Amino acid sequence: MSRFWSPVVQTLTPYIPGEQPQMERLVKLNTNESPYGPSPKALAAIHGHNNDDLRLYPDPEGASLKKAIADLHGLDPKQVFLGNGSDEVLAHVFLGLLKQSKPIQFPDITYSFYPVYCKLFGIDYQTIPLGSDFEIQASDFKTPNGGIIFPNPNAPTGRAIPRADIEALLSRNTDSVVVIDEAYVDYGTESCIPLLRGSACPENLLVVHTLSKSRALAGLRVGFAVGHPALIEGLERVKNSFNSYPLGRLAQVGAIAAIEDQAHLEFTAGKVIQTREHLVKELASLGFDTLPSTANFIFTRHPKHAGVKLHQALRDRGIIVRHFKSARVEEFLRITIGTDEQTNELIAALKEILVSA
Amino acid sequence: MSRFWSPVVQTLTPYIPGEQPQMERLVKLNTNESPYGPSPKALAAIHGHNNDDLRLYPDPEGASLKKAIADLHGLDPKQVFLGNGSDEVLAHVFLGLLKQSKPIQFPDITYSFYPVYCKLFGIDYQTIPLGSDFEIQASDFKTPNGGIIFPNPNAPTGRAIPRADIEALLSRNTDSVVVIDEAYVDYGTESCIPLLRGSACPENLLVVHTLSKSRALAGLRVGFAVGHPALIEGLERVKNSFNSYPLGRLAQVGAIAAIEDQAHLEFTAGKVIQTREHLVKELASLGFDTLPSTANFIFTRHPKHAGVKLHQALRDRGIIVRHFKSARVEEFLRITIGTDEQTNELIAALKEILVSA
Repeated sequence: MSRFWSPVVQTLTPYIPGEQPQMERLVKLNTNESPYGPSPKALAAIHGHNNDDLRLYPDPEGASLKKAIADLHGLDPKQVFLGNGSDEVLAHVFLGLLKQSKPIQFPDITYSFYPVYCKLFGIDYQTIPLGSDFEIQASDFKTPNGGIIFPNPNAPTGRAIPRADIEALLSRNTDSVVVIDEAYVDYGTESCIPLLRGSACPENLLVVHTLSKSRALAGLRVGFAVGHPALIEGLERVKNSFNSYPLGRLAQVGAIAAIEDQAHLEFTAGKVIQTREHLVKELASLGFDTLPSTANFIFTRHPKHAGVKLHQALRDRGIIVRHFKSARVEEFLRITIGTDEQTNELIAALKEILVSA
Repeated sequence: MSRFWSPVVQTLTPYIPGEQPQMERLVKLNTNESPYGPSPKALAAIHGHNNDDLRLYPDPEGASLKKAIADLHGLDPKQVFLGNGSDEVLAHVFLGLLKQSKPIQFPDITYSFYPVYCKLFGIDYQTIPLGSDFEIQASDFKTPNGGIIFPNPNAPTGRAIPRADIEALLSRNTDSVVVIDEAYVDYGTESCIPLLRGSACPENLLVVHTLSKSRALAGLRVGFAVGHPALIEGLERVKNSFNSYPLGRLAQVGAIAAIEDQAHLEFTAGKVIQTREHLVKELASLGFDTLPSTANFIFTRHPKHAGVKLHQALRDRGIIVRHFKSARVEEFLRITIGTDEQTNELIAALKEILVSA
């Protein structure tokens, strides 16, 4: 604490990311990274630009990367906004689109960064409870509101809702922005990006993506949002009042190559989905209840074993998963889908723990 | 314009960075980049980490980079704050330290991003006029204020003030933060970092640095602030409410290697200083008035030739310098110090232009 802090700083409760332990030989299943590397073409592109040109500023607009994203998704480059990871994109979304006179709405159980942004920027919010099976019920998001945001699939539950539910929400909610955070969309969820194509693009739908999950580039820091050009222009104004050059030269060229290598994404995401289905079956045979997941993680609990204890017991065996202390979810573990080998280690460890408990 | 923008977005006038033209064979002297490449050790470190580990998030704290910076400057790692370029560092400084009930103060002619941050975060400010020779007069910054910020050397003038003037300012100004933006300090200006060492570290002095100029890593996006641990803690709270992972894995390892290669900085900065002195002499012989510069750029005007015309005439010859349309400085050109070869091209072009005008 310091008397030189702004009043707002005194009130902040910062987001706590999953830990990045420096221990060797760890099975790290706590921050939803891909167990497979990025596209080799991304590494090659970075290699090709790792030279004295790093003395030069990057393109502040990221025009080539915007074009690559627009081409992949059938959009116009003016529909693309870039950021230093999707967390930065979300920060600009909260300040630039969601800071309104009315409170915004998001689920009671969701990405825990949302209330943190609200605190930082002085945004009022209401939480909308998930259903009894931890599903988002889009019909519970009711006007009036200053905006709506949720991930699809939701985090940390992994549960998705169909695109049709979001279309229905959009048809009711026409006076505020609806932000769909699709960080985990590539593991079996219907994306809302097709709704943005052509002249039918809604004025108030924004979809946020990251390259940190299915593109396996968490270490490079690239995210983006796509939506109506007028929404994007608002975000550009905020970005250009905050940091002209959020994406370095290596991040831009690496991201372009990754975006262009859709085959690599599909192959690695397919493997993750297979491993997920295997893990869910094995957990069921151990008595775990696992929420239906279309993400690269699962959310699971055991009726007889407390989440906090399982979390610690796994940790004692060098396996790091995520546990949240919040109400309604404290019995759950969030487990990132790793390789088959890591998954088998996890299952073996859980068997041991359940027997010895 | 969109009815879905936050009210604040409607009022923004974003910062406009110097252009990054895509033309070939350009003499680019407009954004104060180093004409020499970064430390080869930085490129080697990036090369060594350009691998499948990019699938993993970086260290959110940047602990190793903080230690490298602290070691170089004789500080404690708790005195170091990292950002995605010094522009992001400054953004967090404005929100976290300078958003106070009283207006903050900065020079009337200075880095034009400062009023943009104020607009974004709703911060009142007063501008303090430079002296008649475009010098910052520290004694004109008077309490009460919500904080004071200026670059040393100042931008776009290149003029520095002695550290003793800032010490005197600190002795008078004890109730608000004083931020010294030392982006260009390595070309002959006295740094204020020595004031931060040990137990005498003032509670209210923050010094901001970038790796985009003398470290020749504008393309990598790394900046930092150093100051009292309590100030740094306030900035960390803002950062952790905005983006947990502002610096990617390659940015962190490249920056560490660059920070550790002080010899490379001293050698290349020495060459820039030599070229600057040569350029200043040649400009004087052409009738230009150049402000005394301890930066990697100079600010110069010709009594008989309008700045805007010289800017365009140089551009027509493939030489890009920076011209600002603001009051008091519209007759000036800001010219980045390039290689000797680029500088000679510039001088030859100016000779041609003056003769033909």
